[in-house]
Amino acid sequence: MREVMAYIDAHRDRFVRELIEWVKIPSISDLPEHAPDVLRSAQHLAGEFKRWAPDQVRILPTEGHPAVYAEWLHAPGKPTLLVYGHHDVQPVDPLNEWLSPPFEPEIRDGQLYGRGTVDDKGQVFVHAKAIEAFVQTGAHRLPINLKIIVEGEEEIASCNLGQLLIDHAKLLEADYVCVSDTAMFGRGTPSLCVGLRGLAYFEITVRGPRSDVHSGSFGGAIANPANALARVVASLQNEDGSVAIPGFYDRVRALTSEERKQIAALGHDDAEWLAASGAPLAFGEPGYSTLERLWTRPSLDVCGLTGGFQGPGSKTIIPAVASAKVSCRLVPDQVPSEIARLFEAYVQSIAPRGVQVEVTFVSGAHPYLAPTTHPVFAKAQRAFSRAFGKPTVFIREGGTIPFVRTIADMTGKPCLLMGFGLPDENAHAPNERLMLENFHLGTKSAAYLYDELATLDGGG
Amino acid sequence: MREVMAYIDAHRDRFVRELIEWVKIPSISDLPEHAPDVLRSAQHLAGEFKRWAPDQVRILPTEGHPAVYAEWLHAPGKPTLLVYGHHDVQPVDPLNEWLSPPFEPEIRDGQLYGRGTVDDKGQVFVHAKAIEAFVQTGAHRLPINLKIIVEGEEEIASCNLGQLLIDHAKLLEADYVCVSDTAMFGRGTPSLCVGLRGLAYFEITVRGPRSDVHSGSFGGAIANPANALARVVASLQNEDGSVAIPGFYDRVRALTSEERKQIAALGHDDAEWLAASGAPLAFGEPGYSTLERLWTRPSLDVCGLTGGFQGPGSKTIIPAVASAKVSCRLVPDQVPSEIARLFEAYVQSIAPRGVQVEVTFVSGAHPYLAPTTHPVFAKAQRAFSRAFGKPTVFIREGGTIPFVRTIADMTGKPCLLMGFGLPDENAHAPNERLMLENFHLGTKSAAYLYDELATLDGGG
Repeated sequence: MREVMAYIDAHRDRFVRELIEWVKIPSISDLPEHAPDVLRSAQHLAGEFKRWAPDQVRILPTEGHPAVYAEWLHAPGKPTLLVYGHHDVQPVDPLNEWLSPPFEPEIRDGQLYGRGTVDDKGQVFVHAKAIEAFVQTGAHRLPINLKIIVEGEEEIASCNLGQLLIDHAKLLEADYVCVSDTAMFGRGTPSLCVGLRGLAYFEITVRGPRSDVHSGSFGGAIANPANALARVVASLQNEDGSVAIPGFYDRVRALTSEERKQIAALGHDDAEWLAASGAPLAFGEPGYSTLERLWTRPSLDVCGLTGGFQGPGSKTIIPAVASAKVSCRLVPDQVPSEIARLFEAYVQSIAPRGVQVEVTFVSGAHPYLAPTTHPVFAKAQRAFSRAFGKPTVFIREGGTIPFVRTIADMTGKPCLLMGFGLPDENAHAPNERLMLENFHLGTKSAAYLYDELATLDGGG
Repeated sequence: MREVMAYIDAHRDRFVRELIEWVKIPSISDLPEHAPDVLRSAQHLAGEFKRWAPDQVRILPTEGHPAVYAEWLHAPGKPTLLVYGHHDVQPVDPLNEWLSPPFEPEIRDGQLYGRGTVDDKGQVFVHAKAIEAFVQTGAHRLPINLKIIVEGEEEIASCNLGQLLIDHAKLLEADYVCVSDTAMFGRGTPSLCVGLRGLAYFEITVRGPRSDVHSGSFGGAIANPANALARVVASLQNEDGSVAIPGFYDRVRALTSEERKQIAALGHDDAEWLAASGAPLAFGEPGYSTLERLWTRPSLDVCGLTGGFQGPGSKTIIPAVASAKVSCRLVPDQVPSEIARLFEAYVQSIAPRGVQVEVTFVSGAHPYLAPTTHPVFAKAQRAFSRAFGKPTVFIREGGTIPFVRTIADMTGKPCLLMGFGLPDENAHAPNERLMLENFHLGTKSAAYLYDELATLDGGG
């Protein structure tokens, strides 16, 4: 391993330069006009993988954006690891809040700024470069068999991933799965993520008059879609922050006192966490700590509100239509399709008079909890600690990676969530960044992981 | 009068052509980039007035957009009438709902389509052309003294009108005032408007995290500004459509049974009125008819809602900020500044935890009720009926014309609201239009008004 580590050290700056070239491609999967960029991003990554798998790289088309697949399978009798990541990125608005343009990556204070640096191009690159380090040194070989799939639709709820996994089931067979798309608990704390929240995303649209009408000529005598929307949205939650939809909590698994103890032992600092976001105070479902709320309790958030006149000044109209985008984060054992039924039924039951209310279930993803007693988790902890020189903790994550639950359900294999981001690196927000130290130590962690897995049984 | 009427008939088409030229100027007072157009509109109108007042036309600058003033004062011993209108227009969005471009006026089915046709350029032109008809025929003179002021900021709450009236108090002295900026009760029903609602316009801004944050990483553990805004807006009204702000109704003058009878006698048809807007049903404060709600009861409407991600797709964020524009229509004896105090205090009292709530009082205007027993109202009814050949009814209007109450308070003189629009002509909405028959008969009504007023005392 010494030679592998020396290679990673020696090529540190080049790895960053190469990552920058990839980040420059604005692969925003959510905006149709960026579809060619998502394809370009896939092609760029395929080129990167060809360094160590010249004939085993494929671009896998989907109904939407393409995924990239590569493999190295020359370690007979050794386990096969499937690595997952994504090469698509979030939209960038509000653009004016970025200190440097999102697709012109810039290094400031040891951090690489740019959309996709931490979520998830930088973390995909960790594996690409760890593999390169093995293949370019010593025996020119990896200690295990390795497959990597990098999808192009993670930021749009992996809408074609299920089909992709079915179409390429054989290709994706493996003993273990590793996903690098999460954050560590904090700087210098290697962390394996063992739980993810799921998602149910809705759009509520409220319609009134055919087009916008004068608020003098109609105000007070017809229902206003924007006022009605506010009433509907306000009714989704109770004043204390809990969700008011009947049945919403029915399947939520209660926390054990052991789990609460483990979470409390991590020593989360609310004040520091708040400072990172600028939010004035911690607020949520009563009876739970911040980490418990984020990791083990479902939530409901308006992601966007729109209706009527939004320019400067004071146009006096009743809007024809108003709408809200709403995301619910789900926890075990909530089921997205069931939450969708409850959500839709509730909204219709409270729909104000005089307007038409429409609910669209945009997308869903199941929550995930890892089988942490499986020996692969101890191996992964060891690998992570070898690179960072610190004990590796188990954490959960409030976000959603649809792939994890899907692949876990399909294969029954354990899934390692080994992430190298930090909680304050602005994934999904302006000024997204990646700490270059973590990119470097992450690359080493991935290399150690391959090394550790070689001691486990394989080929099962 | 026969000669005057013949002139108006003979030049009917030219009057429309000239109006079209003026409507082409996009004098949107609310949008700073259109300031040069508002000035151009003032200059264009000044040119029009020079037909009959070559040396008595002035452009009156303000802190904002300019007004245009002209006078003809060669009828000693006769009353002086001050006519008021405005040359600024509303913004045009949503632009895609216009069947023809808002500033390329088009005649379809006897209606002139374009922004400002009915509100208020067409109605200002009625007077311009009635005056021209007198001055170009017979004795080349008007039967009364006439002053006309056309302001450029009516659509932004006449924010500098008070100062303008103070600066030019002498110039604007008159015995009677006539405003043509309202609608008739229906097609073929000449109507004098004797009441207007006032306005208090607010912006509510709710702030949370410094910038948009990931709804997975923060959802459920910090307050969401968009959810909080919905809660605030929903709390402004009760479920039955009445306003929930404590004290809001305290000064509202109760309807007399005589007033209710007069309003009921007009034979308003809810179904027809709804069909014009496309709203599914009449909805408002319980215990009042639609006309009573529109004319005699205050209202509260969200004119615009904005926050977070509004593009297509499903970005999963908690927005940093969300805001609502809210207009309250006021009735006698509500006072805008007092309503502003109540509104602000109430919103702060219900501000949800974990966010910062800010209320801005954008603008206000007092409501108005005319002294209908003054003899000038009977004269105006007679003039209107001579042109339209039908009895003239008294109506009110749900909208706001700040000038009316301001001039009434400053001068103590009666103010005639003689409007030639129709309720379904989409003032403030896409596809604004003016029925050309009403433009023509309106011009005759204005001429008859000048004729009728000559029989009243003047020079007081």
